[in-house]
Amino acid sequence: MGDKRGVLIVLSGPSGAGKSTVIAGMMKRRGDVRFSVSATTRPARPGETDGKDYFFLTREAFDELVARDAFLEHAEYVGNCYGTPAQPVEESLAAGWNVLLDIEVQGAAQVMAKRPDAVSVFLCPPSLAELERRLRGRGTDPEEKILGRLARARREYPLAKNYTYIVVNDDADKAAAELDAIITAELCRSEKRLAFIEKGDRSI
Amino acid sequence: MGDKRGVLIVLSGPSGAGKSTVIAGMMKRRGDVRFSVSATTRPARPGETDGKDYFFLTREAFDELVARDAFLEHAEYVGNCYGTPAQPVEESLAAGWNVLLDIEVQGAAQVMAKRPDAVSVFLCPPSLAELERRLRGRGTDPEEKILGRLARARREYPLAKNYTYIVVNDDADKAAAELDAIITAELCRSEKRLAFIEKGDRSI
Repeated sequence: MGDKRGVLIVLSGPSGAGKSTVIAGMMKRRGDVRFSVSATTRPARPGETDGKDYFFLTREAFDELVARDAFLEHAEYVGNCYGTPAQPVEESLAAGWNVLLDIEVQGAAQVMAKRPDAVSVFLCPPSLAELERRLRGRGTDPEEKILGRLARARREYPLAKNYTYIVVNDDADKAAAELDAIITAELCRSEKRLAFIEKGDRSI
Repeated sequence: MGDKRGVLIVLSGPSGAGKSTVIAGMMKRRGDVRFSVSATTRPARPGETDGKDYFFLTREAFDELVARDAFLEHAEYVGNCYGTPAQPVEESLAAGWNVLLDIEVQGAAQVMAKRPDAVSVFLCPPSLAELERRLRGRGTDPEEKILGRLARARREYPLAKNYTYIVVNDDADKAAAELDAIITAELCRSEKRLAFIEKGDRSI
């Protein structure tokens, strides 16, 4: 690392697609990926650390960052603002880290518009029937919430085509291996490798 | 397999880049890749099988295929013609196989022009100095041949930027893993996966 720039990865997927398991599996396979830390105006909960779980900001500070176009994406959700500050992402990429943004579809669309170099991945369950089975299998959510999530998944599926890649999670290990392979392949793109190859003693 | 189309992979690299080792390593990792069989007008050598090593054709038959635009690429080399027939490649892709064309830079350029969906990979040694060391290390080639290969590599390197991916072979296992990852990632491209997902009982 250090002499090549990392890849910015945008990952979306409906609740129940198994995103956290797949991300954990990919992280176990490689040591060159960092999560982006979001900023929020909601108060910190017990145990949350500023700069690690979130950057906790006042509404004023958040709005100032919005005005300065300092977010890759931002949104308001039940009265609180959330956003991805561009600068820490940029610093990590420049230092050679691959940066993962785990983000819902609207935020992902904002990032893709701002950063055409971002690699986007849509994670989906093998079918809506399987998604429903998984959501019910948790046994914790009220019926209303499950139906809401299914409706949302149905709405969001057509957006999968806007992503660079689609990973179908019918097996979490296989899905993690695919996410891993996507990052490896993106690092092999000739645009990225040429800069590396043309440099100093590695020149050919 | 069977319900999704494979990927056409074009692989080039200078003599001494370690192409056959890297291809063998990739083939060990996955069972879904087939080599394309070339056609040639040169006579079969003892032990060579028609349809396996090459399709052995008369010059007349070859020229007729050229006239029918039935080759993905073709060229003449020291009096003999060589070409990649399009039909067997197409049949393998349609059957879900990924097809690998191991091909020099001019042929690769022809394939890329004809098949914008082809995925191209340029394999290179870490440096020209290392390439020279490898070519001399074989201890079999006369000086003239080594210098010719180095000159050719130097000429061909700038073409690497026309390829989708560049794999630097400083470690054959790592290079094989990268070639493997590239194929996996290409199979995850949303254009390919959408057709799969929208189909029948897997529809979401």
